[in-house]
Formats: sequence, structure tokens, C-alpha cells
Amino acid sequence: MFRCHTLGMSFVGTPDPNSSWLSDEELAEVRRRMPILYVEAIPVRLDAVGKVAEIGTLLRVSPSGNMTRTIVAGRVLYGELIRDALLRHLEKDLGTMAFPQLPISPVPMAVAEMFPESSPTGLTDPRQHAVSLVFVVPVTGTCDPRQDALELSWVAPSEAVASDMLADMEGGRGVLLKQALAAVGCVL
Amino acid sequence: MFRCHTLGMSFVGTPDPNSSWLSDEELAEVRRRMPILYVEAIPVRLDAVGKVAEIGTLLRVSPSGNMTRTIVAGRVLYGELIRDALLRHLEKDLGTMAFPQLPISPVPMAVAEMFPESSPTGLTDPRQHAVSLVFVVPVTGTCDPRQDALELSWVAPSEAVASDMLADMEGGRGVLLKQALAAVGCVL
Amino acid sequence: MFRCHTLGMSFVGTPDPNSSWLSDEELAEVRRRMPILYVEAIPVRLDAVGKVAEIGTLLRVSPSGNMTRTIVAGRVLYGELIRDALLRHLEKDLGTMAFPQLPISPVPMAVAEMFPESSPTGLTDPRQHAVSLVFVVPVTGTCDPRQDALELSWVAPSEAVASDMLADMEGGRGVLLKQALAAVGCVL
Amino acid sequence: MFRCHTLGMSFVGTPDPNSSWLSDEELAEVRRRMPILYVEAIPVRLDAVGKVAEIGTLLRVSPSGNMTRTIVAGRVLYGELIRDALLRHLEKDLGTMAFPQLPISPVPMAVAEMFPESSPTGLTDPRQHAVSLVFVVPVTGTCDPRQDALELSWVAPSEAVASDMLADMEGGRGVLLKQALAAVGCVL
Repeated sequence: MFRCHTLGMSFVGTPDPNSSWLSDEELAEVRRRMPILYVEAIPVRLDAVGKVAEIGTLLRVSPSGNMTRTIVAGRVLYGELIRDALLRHLEKDLGTMAFPQLPISPVPMAVAEMFPESSPTGLTDPRQHAVSLVFVVPVTGTCDPRQDALELSWVAPSEAVASDMLADMEGGRGVLLKQALAAVGCVL
Repeated sequence: MFRCHTLGMSFVGTPDPNSSWLSDEELAEVRRRMPILYVEAIPVRLDAVGKVAEIGTLLRVSPSGNMTRTIVAGRVLYGELIRDALLRHLEKDLGTMAFPQLPISPVPMAVAEMFPESSPTGLTDPRQHAVSLVFVVPVTGTCDPRQDALELSWVAPSEAVASDMLADMEGGRGVLLKQALAAVGCVL
Repeated sequence: MFRCHTLGMSFVGTPDPNSSWLSDEELAEVRRRMPILYVEAIPVRLDAVGKVAEIGTLLRVSPSGNMTRTIVAGRVLYGELIRDALLRHLEKDLGTMAFPQLPISPVPMAVAEMFPESSPTGLTDPRQHAVSLVFVVPVTGTCDPRQDALELSWVAPSEAVASDMLADMEGGRGVLLKQALAAVGCVL
Repeated sequence: MFRCHTLGMSFVGTPDPNSSWLSDEELAEVRRRMPILYVEAIPVRLDAVGKVAEIGTLLRVSPSGNMTRTIVAGRVLYGELIRDALLRHLEKDLGTMAFPQLPISPVPMAVAEMFPESSPTGLTDPRQHAVSLVFVVPVTGTCDPRQDALELSWVAPSEAVASDMLADMEGGRGVLLKQALAAVGCVL
């Protein structure tokens, strides 16, 4: 059993032929054939009156060795509820003490359609056609990112605009961040 | 080349090994391994002031030979935008003269999570784990359902409640109908 | 200074002519002339996976002496933010230890338009034309309703349907409850 | 009877003491005492696939004689439905041949809270505390603004960012435009 780093996912490969999940080879094959369902979470800290005070982003090394900035994201597995997938990926990227405040509803703040090339939405993912349900998730605890995320950094909304952060984001996700945050009344 | 009726989908099977889409066997295999992304549309007619006057449902013969009531639904294909998938399935089920008013945003009115068995959401699909983005879509033209839908019927919201229509709906979709319509201010 | 019970609101009357708020007479006058902005909150308790487990309603004596069932509701005052009005009315009706989880965004789950008579929306308020921004608000603490609400009761969504609770609700608010809860994925 | 231009509204003043609407003096008085309910509409033109192609803004002379850029906006009157208020203000500002596609639901894309001074939301309105329900409204016909709007101009989303348009907007409404458009998947 091994962690599949090359695909940039925390999917645990397994040779069990009866598994309802996919081997790495199968996953790579399916990724060229059908859209893959993802969830993404933008962790935020709220101030005393409940407005977004800080936005969390992850600095990560991409498969090609570049540093990229991204948000919490990952596949929904067979048989898994969207909120369970959200919680699993939040725990993987922020640790188990982040105490995320999960959304009551599975209706996302934004829907991102990512394509491998010439994307009509401007959002890209070289590995696949992914459709991502994007949620803004307040966290109240201590975040302690696990190994494959090098660093979690928090910035105020105004800093996010002033810095190059939005332009640095993986696959055009700066736009996604603006859209999901706007849906909760925070404008970048 | 043939239309795949047994799966209740308008997917056109093809033996082309280079196809980015899936053969029926591959699709059946993938369906046991990962969640499949669907779009669903509840066609509605609006009255003069823009309120929902009538809701369209499809009477369909299920793979097991039973009559079931359902709504417009189908897979999102590899490389396809959500709105293009919506339009394709609306044209397949309502004909090309329905003139649907597609949503501006890909954020759905409701998200339905369907599981083959013991579903925590109460929504079921014996074939697969499907995640469906559900939209309420006003139509202004003439609806002329194609062959695999036996009949399109329109009912007023009050009739939908009084009749057994909601209970008759495939895979618990009566609940889904209530939820999506409530999101646009129409309560069943 | 006195609490204005007859209007069923926790508005504190004051004779100060420089006040930016309204005296009872002025308020009564304005209520016949323009729509009044309200916020309403449906308090809910969530289960371990974050689904709505219980819905809180208030049993209240109406101005005409009848018992009616209602939800947390009240005016937005001059100069007050929507979230501050929500918090103020939640504290008034549920006490200061309810620990409500206020929405990040001021965009409501439902908008209720209530009219004194012959209401096109079916929602009525004999005192006024009110427009209400309705939010579903999870509470995590102990609720201790203050005096003008006689009783706070919690029911499971299934009980709410089985009982006469929805029909008992003030001014047609049963419909409103269904609509706001449907928007967060809980269907009555 | 006269049109009240100085307040920048299409409110028709009347001395009738039994009127359910307000005289100009009464309105001015109420504006210092309670939040006033507004609707705002961002007119858009959609391209063939239903994405926002152009955004309409109005160039207007403010009461103080300055040129400002704004969107369609106005009060909800006593007894008036939100959608009727939306239609009335769209007809006033865009003419009767604009054929706006009104929203099915009264739940807005954004809620704007405007205060006369030191606004915690950054949105200001020197006349009053206004709470505005903001909708993105596709128009399909010919727009012919009436006299109090000097000019209607259409810009592509990319131009809106490149130009000074957003900064020019009245009372901080550039932020509002970004937020409402993001809610329908169009990011400025």
C-alpha cells in the first residue's frame, strides 16, 4: 500500500481486485473518459461579527516540481457523501484539530468546471476533466497541515488582492476563490 | 452503433478504442467504482407574473418494466460543460422546440446524492452512486418528448401535492422536486 | 419607557424627539405606508454529520389572545446590520446562551413577502406589509426563551410533517419553514 | 402631482392624506428613522451559450450635479411585490421594450446594506439606510432609457475591470456589481 504522490492526490492505492475503488492505472484511464467529481474548500477565519477576516491557502509542490498555491481539494469516492468527502480532505490538509464548520446543505457556493486544455471556463487541470463543488468553510481550531502541503498561509482579503496570490493559484483557481468568496459577501 | 436502452440513458455505444467516451462495458465497470456526475432539470411553465404555474414530469418505463415518473436527467460527458449537458438532455427529452431558459450560473438549486442501496440521503439509483446537479428550467416553447419518454405531463403545484405524483417518482425524486422548487420559491 | 407588547415586538418605545428610531405612533403610521424590513431565523439543531435533526419553534400568545406557533422574527432597526438584527432577535427569543452560528452572508435562504390582506404570496401579517429575510440558524448552546415567548419546542423534521405544527403557524409561516429548510437540504 | 427628481427616484408625490404612500416630506422623515427596502437590477446580455456577454450600467447626474455610474434601482412601495418593483424600475430605466427575464425566486443574488456614513459594509447612500435586494437580470429586447438616466452603456466583463468603471460607481456599488455577478458565475 502506498500514497499516490505523483497524481497529487492523497488517494491510497490498493491491489485488491474486489475493491469498489480504483487502482491508480484504472483511475488514470477513467480520467481520460469521464468528468471526475471533486469537492474544494476555502478555509476562512471569521472575525467577531462573522465576516471573513482571513483566507487560508496551501502552498504545494506540483507534480512538475513547481510551487503552486491552492485550496483544499480532492475527489469524492464511491459511496461517500459530499460532506464526508469535504471533512476527509479538510482533515488531510488542515489536520484533525481545525474544527471546520461544515455547510448544512450540499449546494455549493460555486461550481468549477476544469478541463485539460482549451478550457471554455478558463479553469484548467492537466490530469482530467474535473467538476468541483466549492464551499467556503469557517474553521475555529488549530490548523496543522500534513506533509504533502508544505505550508498553510492566512491572508486578509485586502492582502489577497494586493499580493500576487490570486495570480499564483493553480489552474486559474484565483478566479474561483473570488467567486466563492463573493457568494458569501466577501469581495476580493 | 446502438442506443443503450437498458441503462435508461441516451448514451450512444461505440467500439472505437480511441474514444474519450466509455463503451457500455466500461461504463458499467466505472459505475461500480466512482460517483457519476449527472444533471437533472425540472421543466416548469411560468405564469404572467413569473411564478411557477406548472411542473413537467416524464412518465417512463424503467429497465425492470415498471412505469415510473421522473424528471429530465442524464450524465455529463467527458469534455462537456454542465450547461451543454443540460441543454442536450432537455432536447432529448422535450424536443428541440421547448426553448428552455437555461440558468446563467452552474450553481444548482439542489444537489442530489443517490446511492445503490441503504442510502443515507433517501435517494436511490440501483445502477450507481450518482451525484446530480438539479436545476429548475422554465420552458417557453412546445414540448415534444422523444421515444424513450412515453409521456410528458404538466401539473399545477397544488395538484402535485394532492395526487400521488410525488410518491410515484423514481428513486425518491419526489423529495428532490420539493427541494429544488422550494429553492425558487414554489412550495409543494 | 415601556416594552411594546401589543405589537408583539420587542421594540422599546421612547419619547425622545431626536431619536433616529420611531415612537409607537410613528411606527404604526409608517406601517400603513411602506414595507417594513424584517429578519426571521429558524433555529435548528444539527446531528453529528451536520444534518438538521431538530427544528425550534416558539409558542406565543398573539395580540388577539390566541396561541400561535412562530419562529424568531423582528424588525431591522435604523443603522443596524442584518446580522446584528438577527443576533439581537435570537438573543431576545432564545436567551444569551444559545450560541447561534450566524450565516456568513446576508443573502437569505428565503424571502417572505407578507401583506395585511388578500396576499398574492399567501403569507399574511395583519399589522403591515413586511418583507422578511429568512435564515436557518444552527444553535449549539442552551436555549432559554424570554418572557414574551411562552415556550420553545424542538421537533424532528418528520414530526413537523406528521403533526399539525405547520398548519398552526402564524400568517402562513408553515410554508416559509418548508421553503427555508428545503434550501438547506432538509425537506418537510 | 409631480415627479420627484431631486431624490433620484421615480416616486410620484401626492398630497392625498389618505394615500397609503408617502409624501416627499414624510419620506424624508422616515428615511432618518428606519431602513428603506430597495431592489436593484444589473441588466446583462447573454451570449449564445448563456454566459454574461455584456453588463449594462447607467450614467446618471446625481442630486449634487456630479456624473455617476449606477445600476437600475428603486424603492419597493407599500403593497408591491418584489418582482413587480423590479419590473417597474426596469421599465422606468430601460423602457418597456427591454423584455427583462425576471428571476423566478425573490431570493436575491446579493444583499446590499447601505448607510449614510461610516458604513461597516463600505456601501453608502447619503440619503438613508437602505437595504437592497440585488438581482442579475438578462434582457433580450431593446433598451431605451427614459430621461432621468442620461445614458445606458454596455461593457464586456473584461472591459469593466480594465476601465475605471467599477471605481466610478455610486456609493461603492462597484463591489456590489462584482458580488452579484460572481454569484451567477461571472467574475470581474
